[in-house]
Amino acid sequence: MSNPLPQGANIGILGGGQLGRMLAVAASRLGLKAHIFEPGANPPAGQVADQVTTASYEDEAALHRFAQSVDVITYEFENIPTSALDILEQIRPIHPGRQALAISQDRLSEKEFLTGLGLKVAPYANVTSAAEAEAAAQSIGTPSILKTRRMGYDGKGQDRLKNVSDMKKAWQAMQGAPSVLEGFINFSHEVSVIAARTSDGQVACYDPGENVHCEGILHSTTVPATLSAAQRMDAVLLAGQILNALDYVGVMGVELFVTADGLIVNEIAPRVHNSGHWTQNGCDICQFEQHIRAVVGWPLGDGSRHSDIRMENLIGADMERVPELRETNAALHLYGKSEIKPGRKMGHVNFRI
Amino acid sequence: MSNPLPQGANIGILGGGQLGRMLAVAASRLGLKAHIFEPGANPPAGQVADQVTTASYEDEAALHRFAQSVDVITYEFENIPTSALDILEQIRPIHPGRQALAISQDRLSEKEFLTGLGLKVAPYANVTSAAEAEAAAQSIGTPSILKTRRMGYDGKGQDRLKNVSDMKKAWQAMQGAPSVLEGFINFSHEVSVIAARTSDGQVACYDPGENVHCEGILHSTTVPATLSAAQRMDAVLLAGQILNALDYVGVMGVELFVTADGLIVNEIAPRVHNSGHWTQNGCDICQFEQHIRAVVGWPLGDGSRHSDIRMENLIGADMERVPELRETNAALHLYGKSEIKPGRKMGHVNFRI
Repeated sequence: MSNPLPQGANIGILGGGQLGRMLAVAASRLGLKAHIFEPGANPPAGQVADQVTTASYEDEAALHRFAQSVDVITYEFENIPTSALDILEQIRPIHPGRQALAISQDRLSEKEFLTGLGLKVAPYANVTSAAEAEAAAQSIGTPSILKTRRMGYDGKGQDRLKNVSDMKKAWQAMQGAPSVLEGFINFSHEVSVIAARTSDGQVACYDPGENVHCEGILHSTTVPATLSAAQRMDAVLLAGQILNALDYVGVMGVELFVTADGLIVNEIAPRVHNSGHWTQNGCDICQFEQHIRAVVGWPLGDGSRHSDIRMENLIGADMERVPELRETNAALHLYGKSEIKPGRKMGHVNFRI
Repeated sequence: MSNPLPQGANIGILGGGQLGRMLAVAASRLGLKAHIFEPGANPPAGQVADQVTTASYEDEAALHRFAQSVDVITYEFENIPTSALDILEQIRPIHPGRQALAISQDRLSEKEFLTGLGLKVAPYANVTSAAEAEAAAQSIGTPSILKTRRMGYDGKGQDRLKNVSDMKKAWQAMQGAPSVLEGFINFSHEVSVIAARTSDGQVACYDPGENVHCEGILHSTTVPATLSAAQRMDAVLLAGQILNALDYVGVMGVELFVTADGLIVNEIAPRVHNSGHWTQNGCDICQFEQHIRAVVGWPLGDGSRHSDIRMENLIGADMERVPELRETNAALHLYGKSEIKPGRKMGHVNFRI
């Protein structure tokens, strides 16, 4: 491995939520320091970071100071304003790189990239006008789902179509935001592959996990997933193909639908992923450490799993389960968020199965 | 469990070394914040703590502010000045409590406490004068080892006697510090039990680990240790007996010599212990989380182990092993210390065995 960053190096992390928090902890385990950049006050990651910059992504001076104070930059979410990235990348390397960010920030680009690799995605149509909306509803049919091209996550910025006639209202709800209509897929279940790649092309994948969503938010991930050996191999190979095509550095979450006709790529996320939290108790080198290793030029762990795990998210009022959960030997991971809100990810728990 | 501290509570930790660092990380996992009190600048624990107070243990105003900013106080080392504890305990609870600290700060008190419980310790004699030194050397014989009663750790403040005539020089080296002469024990190996207790008397022990020391510093711990089922049970029971006798709250390290005549207590440490670092990769609830759980009034993990582990310390120049170790899948834990010094604990590595 060429030129790993030395002990005590500073990792700049854009975003101070739970993913930034767990990245900061993983960095500490490798003797590295984390500097969080986050517009919101008192971010969860700030509690475990060496430094925190509280500033907007429009604050050019703050972006400059942040970049100059660190050795490398990474992020916990993909919707970072392009103008901020333009400033930061002049000063320090950003991993994963701009191409992965650009693709994952835009559902249309993502689908075109994936189909360009020969991978299967759900039928889709670009929607930028009422006329295109109508045509898309006719060609894709129903049930289908209209999603904004940009800034959607955890089921936000989405509207389901039961009938073609639902399109009018759905398109109006998008308020003119460029969107994509996705056809439904007849899939048996969803799995995801947490894959990692270093700058010199080493790729390592964890075993796929089986995801259950609830109201558009991940509810649980179970490892191992229900997959044949051939499907498992396919999943890992296609993840590697995506990472190599992007000359990717870091961890990526690749969500896949399992169908009778093979695996269909649902979505990619150029970052550590909620469906990879099981690795904290299933592996010695978890996805957070794996990401930091890639970003600072260390070799990757091989993704080997010592235990089978079911991860369950603790969302909003699920925090009421904590008193009962702490009576068990399950591994609790709480995010230090002061306020419980419906739909807010407050923590997760890893059960040995 | 009565009155566990709520999410977001502040844990005050006296000492900012690697133990404080790993305690802070464990606190974060439970949604809690850590505030480190440490006289030295840039402590390793500060990199992952929510707050750091840099002040001397003589700074009464700083001690007041620190105590008032936290909900409960714990520590990573036992040699905390009594005057500081007097101030802190007026303001917030300190766990583990004063009795455990007083005993472990003084080798003589410790031995008297242990023998008072009916436990075996090495033959010993109190040495406070040249005359007592001479008498002790005669009664305990050689080989033996003269240790200061207070402030010794990692082989410091110790002198070995090969012959009775060595005592004169050894006692002079102590410069009048009250000391204890310990007779050597014919033991096959050393094990340690990492035990924990809550305020309402729940006790949990991890399986004993087998320790190898090198030049007075722990070199490795291997779990499971070489012990018969009866010895394993003895080890755990005597650890529980010690914790109950002290009405102890938190994690304690109990070092034991294994001899043909049974287990002999070498030393107790009222804190998380280097010989318990294997729990980070052998258990879902590691010793650091276990300690935090006890201190904040959560129920304990039951100490169950999912994997067999060999922990090796990385001391001083052992850091040269890091490039090779990071090519393996071993779990590295580095402490973020900027300067490598001979004998300085820089990190450790947990190997799955």
